[in-house]
Amino acid sequence: MAKTAITPTRAQDYPQWYQAVIKGADMAENAVVRGCMVIKPWGYSIWELIQKDLDRRIKETGHENFYFPLFVPLSFLAKEAEHVEGFAKECAVVTHHRLVMDPVKGLIPGGELEEPLVVRPTSEAVIGEAYSRWINSYRDLPMLGNQWANIVRWEMRPRIFLRTSEFLWQEGHTAHETAEEAIVETEKMLAVYADLSESILAVPVVQGKKTASERFPGAVDTYTIESMMQDKKALQAGTSHFLGQNFAKAFNIDYLSREGTQEHVWTTSWGVTTRLIGGVIMTHSDDDGLVLPPRIAPYQVVIVPVMRKDTDEAAVHDYCNALKQALEAVSFAGEKIRVHVDTKDRRTGDKIWGWIKKGVPVRVEVGQREFDDKTVCVSRRDQESSVKTLVPVADFSREIAKQLGDIQAALFQRAQDFQVENTFRTETVAAFDAFFAPKAEKTGFVLAYWNGDAETEARLKTVQVTARCIPLKTLDEKGVCLFTGTPNAPLTLFAKSY
Amino acid sequence: MAKTAITPTRAQDYPQWYQAVIKGADMAENAVVRGCMVIKPWGYSIWELIQKDLDRRIKETGHENFYFPLFVPLSFLAKEAEHVEGFAKECAVVTHHRLVMDPVKGLIPGGELEEPLVVRPTSEAVIGEAYSRWINSYRDLPMLGNQWANIVRWEMRPRIFLRTSEFLWQEGHTAHETAEEAIVETEKMLAVYADLSESILAVPVVQGKKTASERFPGAVDTYTIESMMQDKKALQAGTSHFLGQNFAKAFNIDYLSREGTQEHVWTTSWGVTTRLIGGVIMTHSDDDGLVLPPRIAPYQVVIVPVMRKDTDEAAVHDYCNALKQALEAVSFAGEKIRVHVDTKDRRTGDKIWGWIKKGVPVRVEVGQREFDDKTVCVSRRDQESSVKTLVPVADFSREIAKQLGDIQAALFQRAQDFQVENTFRTETVAAFDAFFAPKAEKTGFVLAYWNGDAETEARLKTVQVTARCIPLKTLDEKGVCLFTGTPNAPLTLFAKSY
Repeated sequence: MAKTAITPTRAQDYPQWYQAVIKGADMAENAVVRGCMVIKPWGYSIWELIQKDLDRRIKETGHENFYFPLFVPLSFLAKEAEHVEGFAKECAVVTHHRLVMDPVKGLIPGGELEEPLVVRPTSEAVIGEAYSRWINSYRDLPMLGNQWANIVRWEMRPRIFLRTSEFLWQEGHTAHETAEEAIVETEKMLAVYADLSESILAVPVVQGKKTASERFPGAVDTYTIESMMQDKKALQAGTSHFLGQNFAKAFNIDYLSREGTQEHVWTTSWGVTTRLIGGVIMTHSDDDGLVLPPRIAPYQVVIVPVMRKDTDEAAVHDYCNALKQALEAVSFAGEKIRVHVDTKDRRTGDKIWGWIKKGVPVRVEVGQREFDDKTVCVSRRDQESSVKTLVPVADFSREIAKQLGDIQAALFQRAQDFQVENTFRTETVAAFDAFFAPKAEKTGFVLAYWNGDAETEARLKTVQVTARCIPLKTLDEKGVCLFTGTPNAPLTLFAKSY
Repeated sequence: MAKTAITPTRAQDYPQWYQAVIKGADMAENAVVRGCMVIKPWGYSIWELIQKDLDRRIKETGHENFYFPLFVPLSFLAKEAEHVEGFAKECAVVTHHRLVMDPVKGLIPGGELEEPLVVRPTSEAVIGEAYSRWINSYRDLPMLGNQWANIVRWEMRPRIFLRTSEFLWQEGHTAHETAEEAIVETEKMLAVYADLSESILAVPVVQGKKTASERFPGAVDTYTIESMMQDKKALQAGTSHFLGQNFAKAFNIDYLSREGTQEHVWTTSWGVTTRLIGGVIMTHSDDDGLVLPPRIAPYQVVIVPVMRKDTDEAAVHDYCNALKQALEAVSFAGEKIRVHVDTKDRRTGDKIWGWIKKGVPVRVEVGQREFDDKTVCVSRRDQESSVKTLVPVADFSREIAKQLGDIQAALFQRAQDFQVENTFRTETVAAFDAFFAPKAEKTGFVLAYWNGDAETEARLKTVQVTARCIPLKTLDEKGVCLFTGTPNAPLTLFAKSY
C-alpha cells in the first residue's frame, strides 16, 4: 500500500482522519476553553474567501449589513416560547460584570447583574425588538438586514468546524408585508446558499424542507441544504427559515398596511457558519490531506524552486519570480490568481508535502533543468501526487488558468457523482433498514415516502438515522408512507448525519 | 441665525449635538442592553470601508489574520498581574452554560461552570498561551498575527462609538527575537494607524508615547495617536504596545535562539476600534449633521431627480441613470465611485436634507432644466448647503472625481489647521492652568515639560486634564519640569479628553 501523508486513512478511521487533515493543513486547533476552536491563518483565509463571495451575494440581493450586540437579555430570549426552549440547554450566561479579590478564594466574579445576559445563540430576539421600533409602515418594508458575527451554543460533543461552542456565521433577518413575499425571500436565500456551495465550494447539495421536528425553534418552515460527505453521512450546510408571524407577535413587530390597517409583519432568518469549512474538508480531501477547490484556496498556485548542488540559484529564483508575475497578470474567476513562491530554507520534499497537505490546487516545481529547457513541472492536487506534467513556459499562464477551472469543475463533478451513486430509493422497510444496518454494503442517502409519524422517528433515532429533508425537486411527489401505510406522504430524504 | 438640521448646535451643547448627528445620519443607536450599541447599516458601511483599507495595510506589512475564542478562562487572564488588575473592574463573566426552569423564579441560569470564563476584554492571554505552543525556535519568529473581533469592557458611562460595553476592533499580536525588533514593529503599526487616520479618515493625529500611568496594563511602552475634536478635547484613536517580555514570562513563550540558548520572546499588541467612527464624526461634522471624507463614504455621490409638474419624468430618470453609469466608469482613489440615485417616493427637499445629514460628500440635483441644458447642479458637503454649481454634463465625471479628491484634502486641511491653531506651548504654571480653567478663552492641546510626578497628575485630574502623550516629533527635547523644577523632563502634551 502506498504511504499516505495522513494517518489514519479515511478507510481506517474517518473521524480521526478528519482531525488529522485539519492538523496536517494547520487550519485550526482546539482551544483551551473546552468546545471552542482557534482558527489558524490557513483556515481563516479560507473563511475570508467564503465570506467575501457570500457577502457580495447578500448585498446583490438587496440586503444591508448591520451589527447587533453580543448579549441578549434573558427576558427577551424568553419571549418566543419554542425559541427559548430550543436554545435553553446550550446558553452561555453572563451573570457578573467585574472580578473581585476574595481573601480566601482569590479572584472571583463580582457585581452581579440585575438580569442575566445570554451570549447570543442567534439574534432573532434582539433584532426583533429593534424591528418593532424601526418598522412603522409598509413603506419601511421589506426590511432586509444581515450581520456577520460570532455565536455561542454550548456544545457537549464538540468537533472542530462542525460543532463548536463558539462559531462564526452570518445571520440574515428580514421582515415583509405578506407571507408570500417572506416565503420567496426564504427560498431565494436558500438558492444563494446552494449556489455558493456548488459553484464556490464545489460541494453539491440537496435543497429541501425540514420535517416538523427538525425545524428551527420558532420557525414555521425550515429550508436546508444537505451535502453528502465521503463517509456517506449528511451535513446540514445552511438553513433558511420562514418564521411566519411567530416573532412578529412575540416582539410586536407591526406596521400600517397599504389599506390603513395595523398588521403583523412576516419574518425570515437564514445563516451559514464556519461549518462550511468542515464540509469542504470532508467532501474533497484524501489520504494525503486537504484538497481545496481553487475558488477558496488562499494560494491557488505554489511555485517551489528546486535547488541541487549544481543549480544556478539566482537564475532559478528569477525564473520563479517571473513565473509568478506572469501568472498574476492572468485572471481566474475574475480575480488575480493567488500565487506564492516558497523560498523557505527547508528540504524540497518537505515543502512539496507541506503544500499537498494544505490542499493547494496547483504545484509548480522549477529547477535547473526546467530553467534550461524553458519549461515548468506542474502537478494537480486532484490527481495522484506522482503525476507531473511538463508545460512549455510560453503556455504556462494560460495553461494554469485553464487547469484551475478544470480542477474546480472536476472536484464538483466527482462529489456530485458520489452523491448520485450513493442515493437510493426504497420501497420496503426491510430494504430501508438494510441501508442503515451496521457495516451495510450500500448506504448513503435513502429516499422513501414518509408521513412524519413520531414512532418511526423515534425508532430511526436509535440507529442514528434522521429525516434530512423533503427535497424541493420532488416536493409535489406524494406516495403511500413506507412505515405507516397512510397515503399522501412526501418523498423524504433519510441519512445518518453530522 | 440660519436654521440648522441638527438641534442643539455644537455651540449650544456639544455632547448632545454628537448624539443628534448620529441619530440624524441613522448610523447607530443605544441597544436594550445597557452600554451596548446597534450599528445600523449607514454606520456599519463606514466601518466596513475602514476595515477594508486597514486590513489591506495589516496584510501588506506581513501579518496574517486568525481567530481566537471569545472566552478567556479566569486563571489565564490572571497570569499577568498588572494586566488582570487593569481589566478586573470591567469584565463580563460567564458563570453558567444553560438556562433552567425554576418553579418559582421562572427561567434562571443553570449548569454552573467549574471555572468562570471572562468575555475577552483583549486577547493577550489566550493568544499568549497559543504562542507558547506555536513558537519553538527562532525560525518561527517573527510571528505576526491579527484578528478582527468583538470586545467587551463593561462601561459605567457609555457613549455611542466612543465608549461602549461591546465594541468591534482589530488586535494585532506579534512575537520577536529581540527588543529592538519588537519596538520597530510597535512603531511601524503606530505609523500605519497614523496614516490610516490622516489619509483615509482625514483626521490629523499627534503620534506619541504614553506616560507611565496611561500605559496599557502589562505594557512596557504604549504608543498612541491622539486627535483633536472640535470641542478641542483629545481623542485617543489607536494604540500600539511594546509589551517587553512581560507576557512572554507570564505565558512562558520561549524559543531556541540562533545561539542555541532558550530565550523569552518580545511581544507587541496594537488595536483600533469602532471608536474611530466617533472621531470622524467629531472632527468633521457640522450643525447640519454628519460630514464624511469621501474615502469612507458609503455613497460618495447621491443623485436626486427633481420632479415638478411639467417634468418629463422618464427623461430625467434616464438622464440620472446615465450620469450614474458615467461616474461609475471613473475611479477615485483606485476604486469605482460609489453612486446612488435616490428614486424614493419622498419630497425633494426631504431627500436633500436626508443626504446632508448622512454626510454624503457630493449631491447632484437633476430636473427638467438640467436635462434641457445638458448640465448638472452640484453641491459639496464641505461647503454651505446653499452653494450650488452648474457643471456641463460633458465635464461631469472628471469634475466629480476631482471634487472628491478636493473634499478629502480640504477636510484634512481644515482639521489640521484647527489642531495647530489650538495647540499651545506654555512656560508657567499659571498660564498652563488658565488654558484649562472653566470657560477659558483659549484651550486645546497644551505642551509643557513634565517629569511625570504623581502629585501633578492627581491635581490635573481634578480638572479633567491628563497627559495625552510625549509627542514622537519632539521626543528628544527635554527641559526643566514646569511643575517640579527638576531637569530633563520630556515635552508632554496635555488636554482634556474622551
